[in-house]
Amino acid sequence: MIKVGVIGYGYWGPNIVRNLHGLDSTRVEMVCDKSEAALAKVRKAFPGVKTCTNPEDILTSPSIDAVAVITPVWTHYALAKRALENGKHVFVEKPFTSSAAQAEELIELAERKKLTIMVDHTFLFTGAVRKIRELVESGTLGDLYYYDSLRINLGLFQHDVSVIWDLAPHDLSIMDHLIKSEPEAIVATGEKHLNGVEDVAYMTIYFPNSVIAHINVNWLSPVKIRTTLIGGQKKMVVWNDLVADEKVRVYDKGVQFKTGEGLHDVLVSYRTGDMWAPQIEQLEALRVELDYFADCIMTQQKPFNDGHAGLRVVRMLEAAEHSIQKRGELITL
Amino acid sequence: MIKVGVIGYGYWGPNIVRNLHGLDSTRVEMVCDKSEAALAKVRKAFPGVKTCTNPEDILTSPSIDAVAVITPVWTHYALAKRALENGKHVFVEKPFTSSAAQAEELIELAERKKLTIMVDHTFLFTGAVRKIRELVESGTLGDLYYYDSLRINLGLFQHDVSVIWDLAPHDLSIMDHLIKSEPEAIVATGEKHLNGVEDVAYMTIYFPNSVIAHINVNWLSPVKIRTTLIGGQKKMVVWNDLVADEKVRVYDKGVQFKTGEGLHDVLVSYRTGDMWAPQIEQLEALRVELDYFADCIMTQQKPFNDGHAGLRVVRMLEAAEHSIQKRGELITL
Amino acid sequence: MIKVGVIGYGYWGPNIVRNLHGLDSTRVEMVCDKSEAALAKVRKAFPGVKTCTNPEDILTSPSIDAVAVITPVWTHYALAKRALENGKHVFVEKPFTSSAAQAEELIELAERKKLTIMVDHTFLFTGAVRKIRELVESGTLGDLYYYDSLRINLGLFQHDVSVIWDLAPHDLSIMDHLIKSEPEAIVATGEKHLNGVEDVAYMTIYFPNSVIAHINVNWLSPVKIRTTLIGGQKKMVVWNDLVADEKVRVYDKGVQFKTGEGLHDVLVSYRTGDMWAPQIEQLEALRVELDYFADCIMTQQKPFNDGHAGLRVVRMLEAAEHSIQKRGELITL
Amino acid sequence: MIKVGVIGYGYWGPNIVRNLHGLDSTRVEMVCDKSEAALAKVRKAFPGVKTCTNPEDILTSPSIDAVAVITPVWTHYALAKRALENGKHVFVEKPFTSSAAQAEELIELAERKKLTIMVDHTFLFTGAVRKIRELVESGTLGDLYYYDSLRINLGLFQHDVSVIWDLAPHDLSIMDHLIKSEPEAIVATGEKHLNGVEDVAYMTIYFPNSVIAHINVNWLSPVKIRTTLIGGQKKMVVWNDLVADEKVRVYDKGVQFKTGEGLHDVLVSYRTGDMWAPQIEQLEALRVELDYFADCIMTQQKPFNDGHAGLRVVRMLEAAEHSIQKRGELITL
Repeated sequence: MIKVGVIGYGYWGPNIVRNLHGLDSTRVEMVCDKSEAALAKVRKAFPGVKTCTNPEDILTSPSIDAVAVITPVWTHYALAKRALENGKHVFVEKPFTSSAAQAEELIELAERKKLTIMVDHTFLFTGAVRKIRELVESGTLGDLYYYDSLRINLGLFQHDVSVIWDLAPHDLSIMDHLIKSEPEAIVATGEKHLNGVEDVAYMTIYFPNSVIAHINVNWLSPVKIRTTLIGGQKKMVVWNDLVADEKVRVYDKGVQFKTGEGLHDVLVSYRTGDMWAPQIEQLEALRVELDYFADCIMTQQKPFNDGHAGLRVVRMLEAAEHSIQKRGELITL
Repeated sequence: MIKVGVIGYGYWGPNIVRNLHGLDSTRVEMVCDKSEAALAKVRKAFPGVKTCTNPEDILTSPSIDAVAVITPVWTHYALAKRALENGKHVFVEKPFTSSAAQAEELIELAERKKLTIMVDHTFLFTGAVRKIRELVESGTLGDLYYYDSLRINLGLFQHDVSVIWDLAPHDLSIMDHLIKSEPEAIVATGEKHLNGVEDVAYMTIYFPNSVIAHINVNWLSPVKIRTTLIGGQKKMVVWNDLVADEKVRVYDKGVQFKTGEGLHDVLVSYRTGDMWAPQIEQLEALRVELDYFADCIMTQQKPFNDGHAGLRVVRMLEAAEHSIQKRGELITL
Repeated sequence: MIKVGVIGYGYWGPNIVRNLHGLDSTRVEMVCDKSEAALAKVRKAFPGVKTCTNPEDILTSPSIDAVAVITPVWTHYALAKRALENGKHVFVEKPFTSSAAQAEELIELAERKKLTIMVDHTFLFTGAVRKIRELVESGTLGDLYYYDSLRINLGLFQHDVSVIWDLAPHDLSIMDHLIKSEPEAIVATGEKHLNGVEDVAYMTIYFPNSVIAHINVNWLSPVKIRTTLIGGQKKMVVWNDLVADEKVRVYDKGVQFKTGEGLHDVLVSYRTGDMWAPQIEQLEALRVELDYFADCIMTQQKPFNDGHAGLRVVRMLEAAEHSIQKRGELITL
Repeated sequence: MIKVGVIGYGYWGPNIVRNLHGLDSTRVEMVCDKSEAALAKVRKAFPGVKTCTNPEDILTSPSIDAVAVITPVWTHYALAKRALENGKHVFVEKPFTSSAAQAEELIELAERKKLTIMVDHTFLFTGAVRKIRELVESGTLGDLYYYDSLRINLGLFQHDVSVIWDLAPHDLSIMDHLIKSEPEAIVATGEKHLNGVEDVAYMTIYFPNSVIAHINVNWLSPVKIRTTLIGGQKKMVVWNDLVADEKVRVYDKGVQFKTGEGLHDVLVSYRTGDMWAPQIEQLEALRVELDYFADCIMTQQKPFNDGHAGLRVVRMLEAAEHSIQKRGELITL
């Protein structure tokens, strides 16, 4: 059993603590937050769990094996570094760090100390993403053509980060998980309307072999949409994360070209076959992920959402941010 | 009554002829197509209408006032030019021409000869776009933040033009009609997967005052989507053109910022009020447009979808094409 | 080639004439309507077709093989009878007749004269119903549990018939086609709000082996819905006729019971597997039906939507009407 | 502050306890369940709350003011009676009792002892029902025409009660709340397919002035639907409880009749105006209801969802059950 200290009990922290509390493989030792009101909630909901306002209490506690860092992104590096230095495994909220340099340093430190870093790319543990990954890996979709994601809603505005750092880590981590090749370059555009950070943004990511990804994130949409299209040579997927049933739809649709006799005789034929919505596992993704975190520590296994995965996402965020400032300049990765 | 000759009876031509035939203000004199089978259909459906295989029969006919050019884009310039030279008004399928230079020449020629050019931006005559325009003009939406359009489906692939020249003219002409200011620059990305032209493409158009537009067009989507979001300071619109009812939805939603006392005390408040779907006129857009064409000729009125409107769209298409070849290079307009 | 006279050119007649005109197996000889304006439209659209205001011109014409009766229901009997007496095959708009007695008389007459009666149950020729029929026949759904149909919209109000006679013939004919056993009894309820005929109505039809059907028809609904659920032991179908794609969805869902050890130990288990939307043929149903009409005449084949099928629907309509007057009295069929 | 004992910690009990625990106006004193595992969960989640396996511990406890009976329906009467006899207010899960006679006895007892009965018709406290009630009361909808509700899903099967007793209480209580007049009679039909109780059922309820209600409940549907249509003379409502936003849609649609000059000259005109989705309050309904329970006790106010409301629903359930056994016999209320 892994004894965990959790730093941060704001929006996402309660879900972390609830799931760690419910697992057999983990135990929540202590929760830290600067808000006394937040800590009162912890004590009411989980009477056996200790609380503190100073993260050092967790970072230096000899009875803690691992630290979950569930705080704003600009604090991740310092907290995770201190945890690793003290020999503790870390579970870090996404995005991993504020810069690629920070991520690289943490990875190097963890490897030196043989400690586990897991970055909380929760979506990779949902039934939907697992199913899509299976469809890609098994070759059901054929060669990939494009990955196109729409993640828009009203708010939540944040002071310090743009909509790209807020919403795109989801899409980038899923894309990274599904398209296994290395992205070549990024073009990002967007605009600020209210508080000095981009609230709408559009990213194109170029991959080898004409694979292209596109991500549309927006904090100023009157409707909430979470839809991803994945086009393959053989089949195509539409994943709508907001419907209760049939989140993943697989379409037997496509286009075929044959060259005819004459120069301009290209014959296009469309294949429009059945649609199929596979049954999706209903497990809570965060629970599966945290159980996997404990398992990776105990079996000294490398998680697939490790520091390197986190770093790949941070690199793309940095590139996108850079590109957006230059109105769509191509940033090679 | 305006006597019209129609050149091209392929996919769209029959709709043009049917509507011109049904109007009191117009009469179809002659239809030209290189396919005899197409012309046989014309004669069966409209026994009084003459047919020809040589466009010159229309372009030089003394009994014809106006020519509708409903042919592939690369033929528009030559046909329209010849029609204008012969003193005929022209109605040209979108996109207006293959290049801005061609468009400029036609505009200049028409102005010199006091003839009317109308570019078939049909969508501007739909009940939905008229209603949205009304909402923008009346200030109901407040200052615009963004215009974001998704126009995707499976096919129709064309040999000679990319998905941008095929689908984006709709979005660009609507955007041009709603956002009245001049666009500053374009960034476009996309990819070719099948026949040497882009089949997926993404465009960002920068306008003054932080207004940003984004257009996503795709020929390789398993599902058909025609959805446009327009974000304003006061209200926001979602237009779904594929639903039978409530195509246009107006959301009383928004974000407000207040600066608090401390440095970082920005208070964000969200306004989530009612949604309202105004009744939309059900008239056939093309019929309204063609009636307006006849009216503009008869009253010597300048149509709002004139050659200049067509030119503005062609300029953006050219810029987008240029940008896409350079992987998202910013093209100033 | 079957030469057809069409009586009635109101709402549905133009579709009949257009399709008969387009088929190789049929030719429209003459169209009758009491409205001269309607006939002018016929002459404009189909110059070779004769027109008349007196149905006798069609009913007695020696050059006509078959008569399509596309008039209000209360006129079907007299017109079809006269056509049959004159040796002509008949295609009759649904519902077949105003009473079962009339239907029986026409069937007897047609059999005596070896003539074909086809009742226009168009829906049976749609790709959706054909596909569902295939799923039922092949045993894919398993034993049927229920058939539940919702057919509601605003209007069209008719003076002489209730919403049951207007909308339910569709559902009853489809139900009759899919559930092959004989219905046992009907219970119908409903209410009149505006012009003296029921504008909302609900019907339950009992079949042997616990199969139950339910039909909800409504002229006073603000939204248009056309949805039918069919529950089977092995699979379940949801047919939404208003969506462009994936009209028919097949769910691998069900309930299983096992008796446990104790008296009350019934173990219920739910099966929630994949959903599958088979590709549906896109042919125009009416065209397929009219081609089948010609084929049945030429090959002296009995159509499955013959007078008997029409009679079964009329019997249920009569029973429902009777039941509704008595506030849901059970009417044995 | 009202001290409450809760009997039953199965499916719904945890929600009751959580909400009572969170309110300032109530305190959970003790929770009773026959399952020790259930009670262990109570003690883990709410350390200060006592637990017991014998309901008598709650029913006779001097420190308890009110008892929440969250057990199967056949136990409601005995438990509520015992609670009332011991001077305790009762909050009873819906449906109130197994028979009207039981309900009447409890009402009489509570009135005699000046105690409060509240029946848990939770839906009446949702933002959606409150908004619809407001629309009805204010006359916005005009005279009501019909109330038509569809509540279908796969399972949950229950051993002892049919789908009517399981699902219809929701619809009946909402209908009773919105249509203020007394129902006259009920016709119900349905069928059993699996375990000896009806799993699909259809109810028609007749009200004065041609108001008609219809309820469709089904445990064997592959899809979950919760949709209610309410037709009024002036406006119509569609309430879809499964969507996150715009649950209640108000349509400015209707039909008008004018008598023309001739006998059959009835002129029908359709009004199809805007649609409007009012903003709905997002409060948790059960929390609002339980707070209201405490308030009713403290202020000696009669709740609108009192024993009489519960009795009205039970009477309709009994009538429906009676009718269904006789295949739709009209049961006068």
